[in-house]
Amino acid sequence: MDYVAGVDLGGTKILTALADTGGNILARIKVATKAADGPAAVIGRLVDSVRQVAAGVPLAAVGVGSPGPLDHTTGLVYHSPNLGWRNVPLGEMLRERLGVPVFVDNDANLAALGECVRGAGQNESHLVYVTVSTGIGGGLILDGRIYHGSAGGAGEIGHMILDRDGPLCSCGRRGCLEALASGTAIAREARELVARGGGSGLRRLEPGAITAQTVAETARQGDAAAAAILRAAAVNLGRGLAGVITLLNPRVVVVGGGVMASGPAFLATAREEAARHAYGPAWERVSLVPARLGGDSGVVGAVALAFGTQG
Amino acid sequence: MDYVAGVDLGGTKILTALADTGGNILARIKVATKAADGPAAVIGRLVDSVRQVAAGVPLAAVGVGSPGPLDHTTGLVYHSPNLGWRNVPLGEMLRERLGVPVFVDNDANLAALGECVRGAGQNESHLVYVTVSTGIGGGLILDGRIYHGSAGGAGEIGHMILDRDGPLCSCGRRGCLEALASGTAIAREARELVARGGGSGLRRLEPGAITAQTVAETARQGDAAAAAILRAAAVNLGRGLAGVITLLNPRVVVVGGGVMASGPAFLATAREEAARHAYGPAWERVSLVPARLGGDSGVVGAVALAFGTQG
Repeated sequence: MDYVAGVDLGGTKILTALADTGGNILARIKVATKAADGPAAVIGRLVDSVRQVAAGVPLAAVGVGSPGPLDHTTGLVYHSPNLGWRNVPLGEMLRERLGVPVFVDNDANLAALGECVRGAGQNESHLVYVTVSTGIGGGLILDGRIYHGSAGGAGEIGHMILDRDGPLCSCGRRGCLEALASGTAIAREARELVARGGGSGLRRLEPGAITAQTVAETARQGDAAAAAILRAAAVNLGRGLAGVITLLNPRVVVVGGGVMASGPAFLATAREEAARHAYGPAWERVSLVPARLGGDSGVVGAVALAFGTQG
Repeated sequence: MDYVAGVDLGGTKILTALADTGGNILARIKVATKAADGPAAVIGRLVDSVRQVAAGVPLAAVGVGSPGPLDHTTGLVYHSPNLGWRNVPLGEMLRERLGVPVFVDNDANLAALGECVRGAGQNESHLVYVTVSTGIGGGLILDGRIYHGSAGGAGEIGHMILDRDGPLCSCGRRGCLEALASGTAIAREARELVARGGGSGLRRLEPGAITAQTVAETARQGDAAAAAILRAAAVNLGRGLAGVITLLNPRVVVVGGGVMASGPAFLATAREEAARHAYGPAWERVSLVPARLGGDSGVVGAVALAFGTQG
């Protein structure tokens, strides 16, 4: 029996799991990333987590999902704003420390792989994964494999421009999907509404407490303005997804991320809008579904990567 | 020495070529499709062309590019408005008549493959091909292979919606790239301008003679209104390509089709606009270039398909 470890390295936490040949997760550990301590300390914590979760069991390989962009062939992280890293040879350092093969890929790609092997897109060879959270990230499974593009940058659905006169995005351009439909965008719209003197329900929140989550809570309490902000974000998500569906003709689009916790209306609205905007023949073949693994999609994908499910 | 035939089956003409193992084209024949005669007659002409071009040389295989959508695994053409076909078992009929392996794929996919193996994207594994002609079609070469999507429909860049309030598209929706940047769109804009009493240079044309080609000629004669119409189409093309580049991170985008004959300003404008709209890291890696094989990209791709270049 072979065992592997899968690691989901995030900006705030490191989630590490031990799995058997069947991909079943036998144990898991979550520790704080404390990115401010620098790459060496973070990688030390990651190594400790792997050793602890394996607890004496010999590991055949380790798969790691990291914020990118990165070189998945070597595991070199070029630049991660979330971790504050630049050119960190994560794969090489882990191989040296752990003495086993280590495979590294982008976190969104591994979440896509996780949903593909054990989640909402099980056994589908053509899957688009989108996470709607602080930002909007994406991963593509094409012909059964992670699609990286020519330089590891494929899947950046969050930076497809929907409205060139739209709000400023974190990338410096205007009207990206991320600037129109992410948690950050939802909170920004709510703050701007309150600043304009609108949004009776939202005005009851402390200005610093206006987040996508509190906007969603306010909407659930029946506030129309909060609901309209969420709805506008979902409409934009649907339009963005429609373009991807038209271009790639996937079998399933899996949507995850914190904003999905706002309730089923979010995805339902996105689906309605995507139905209107996607090319008919492509729309007929696709299912637009919520992620099934929640916070585990990345670590499940990391386990699959370690097992070489990824060709 | 093995020989193959490649066939580009179009709505108006059938282009057939004989090639050697090196992919060199040794002979070619062009005949009229005469689609109105029906599938049996058209397929008869295609078979005759293959026999004639091979002229006694034994063929190892035949590759055929056909307007789609179609099932590339069997060569069943589901529906081709250009040919007036519905559910024509093109691959099966050709295999029976020719007695050799026959591979069929979508014409835009084979044009992409042609430009990839011997054209503007030689030896590139991540290529997007777009043809801007009466309509706008596309083909994707991802990880060195034609990407078909889950049901053969990948690459429909022409039906990505850029402006939901835009002009009506042939597909029945509004604001598709095809409705904003194709030859048909250019001619429509020119006709509408003339109908509104504008376009001094364009008004000199007979109403029935307003085509993308005559608009381009009028622009070359210094007419500002005609140039502005071409420019607007190119700007929209650039925006559409930017989304594809952001999502797929290709190494090269090859643009072909009749509208490219309007002059180098068309692609230059599209490039400027794409540079503004594409995600920075993806834009840094991509070249946006004109097709190099002209009307031959499809038949060259068909030859490559016959040789199994397509995995």
